[in-house]
Amino acid sequence: MSEFDDATQVDPDGSTAIHDGWDINGNANGGYLMALAARGLLAVAGRADPISVTAHYLSPGKPGPAQVDAEVVKAGRRFTTVSGRLTSGGKPVLQLVGAFGDLAAVPPAYEHIDVDPPDLPPFEECTPRSRNQGAVEVTMMDRLDVRIHPGHSGWVHGDRNGVPEMTGWFAFRDGRPIDTLALLMVCDAFPPAVFHLDMPPGWVPTVEYTVHVRGIPAPGPVKCVFRSQFVQGGFLNEDGEVWDSTGRLVAQSRQLGLTPLTS
Amino acid sequence: MSEFDDATQVDPDGSTAIHDGWDINGNANGGYLMALAARGLLAVAGRADPISVTAHYLSPGKPGPAQVDAEVVKAGRRFTTVSGRLTSGGKPVLQLVGAFGDLAAVPPAYEHIDVDPPDLPPFEECTPRSRNQGAVEVTMMDRLDVRIHPGHSGWVHGDRNGVPEMTGWFAFRDGRPIDTLALLMVCDAFPPAVFHLDMPPGWVPTVEYTVHVRGIPAPGPVKCVFRSQFVQGGFLNEDGEVWDSTGRLVAQSRQLGLTPLTS
Repeated sequence: MSEFDDATQVDPDGSTAIHDGWDINGNANGGYLMALAARGLLAVAGRADPISVTAHYLSPGKPGPAQVDAEVVKAGRRFTTVSGRLTSGGKPVLQLVGAFGDLAAVPPAYEHIDVDPPDLPPFEECTPRSRNQGAVEVTMMDRLDVRIHPGHSGWVHGDRNGVPEMTGWFAFRDGRPIDTLALLMVCDAFPPAVFHLDMPPGWVPTVEYTVHVRGIPAPGPVKCVFRSQFVQGGFLNEDGEVWDSTGRLVAQSRQLGLTPLTS
Repeated sequence: MSEFDDATQVDPDGSTAIHDGWDINGNANGGYLMALAARGLLAVAGRADPISVTAHYLSPGKPGPAQVDAEVVKAGRRFTTVSGRLTSGGKPVLQLVGAFGDLAAVPPAYEHIDVDPPDLPPFEECTPRSRNQGAVEVTMMDRLDVRIHPGHSGWVHGDRNGVPEMTGWFAFRDGRPIDTLALLMVCDAFPPAVFHLDMPPGWVPTVEYTVHVRGIPAPGPVKCVFRSQFVQGGFLNEDGEVWDSTGRLVAQSRQLGLTPLTS
């Protein structure tokens, strides 16, 4: 079993565990937590794919036993909508709502896309995201092979380019295919795009995170781009796109995060 | 009492009504439904402002008695997170999750904005969104003063410009100020941006709709822009921005909608 599948197992009664090794300085990654919880919701829905999943982040996810509670709100023809919660250590960690369906069964429809995939050097020529990020330990990088665009990696040594955009490749180190469940994690696996800004350093906590799964990824690493256009009023957005090896969009994401306070 | 406040009243026990006159061909507007339900969630939260609200659309909202059920998931220092549901006629209409807080109390923080407000002619020189949209009756336009950019209104007579972008102004006809609750409706009050495309005609049902309220609007009409960059695989996104009269972003929105089927 792949590391990701092992770490996102949920029993039929909803009991699960937040696994060690998917964290940043001891707090489980938000995308990992969404994927874990969504696996529980997906099972309750009895569908193949997450279509749209939203999570609100309520307390840090620490390694240990956890529980996914999920309720089908509506089982429709195309979608099953599920409300759910991830609880651990007696505290709510995530509150979720999601629509689940079967992306392979969607009939052909009109298409129009204005946007190109990010322009990236080949996987091998991009900069691996390090496990060590200054004083911060990104232990999940032992499991994820995230490669940052060379022009987007100067922030690591304080060379900020002033453009809140982060692009790169994503793959699992153990070669697990990137399926629609994994996309929920992919969209939160990169360093925040605001690391390119001259912002006071600090944690960027997520308030809310939504992923729209827009396609089933073809085999191979995926290309990702994340942008924070609006850092304002104590909040910031981070919008993501994930593109597969055929150049097709497979996910869109948006986070609402908190800006580190200036005081 | 303003028309909007009258139509979004929720009693302390959650009983409410989907009001007539906020619909498009008999189905209540999605933004109106979110504002109605969010008013119920806001009361349960005991906070001033919606910060991030997500709704999944489960069945059409028809005028008549309705119920908002809301549960506080976590009452934190900065946010109160609420899960809720709008039910009417024995059916779930919306499933929601939201974070509520007090935007006036957010301390100053680092800011960085890459984007300008939409470039619009003055309110009076823009084209009023008509109550009659071909065979479709947009009765809510009796209550809303939506003015479309003259370059973005050709679709009404079949003159599509091929660019999935819709810009314009929003105000209430009765002069009600646009507060943070109203922004939930503003982000769904415009014709779909995909009406500019050569897409088969048809209803564009919303699967999921999220609004991030990013500021308290200054007095006056607000400028809005909506874009659908990814019409693909039977789904489409519509991303919105709302800017107040001082040129400050006050809301960001994203919808996941269904593309009319080609068959």
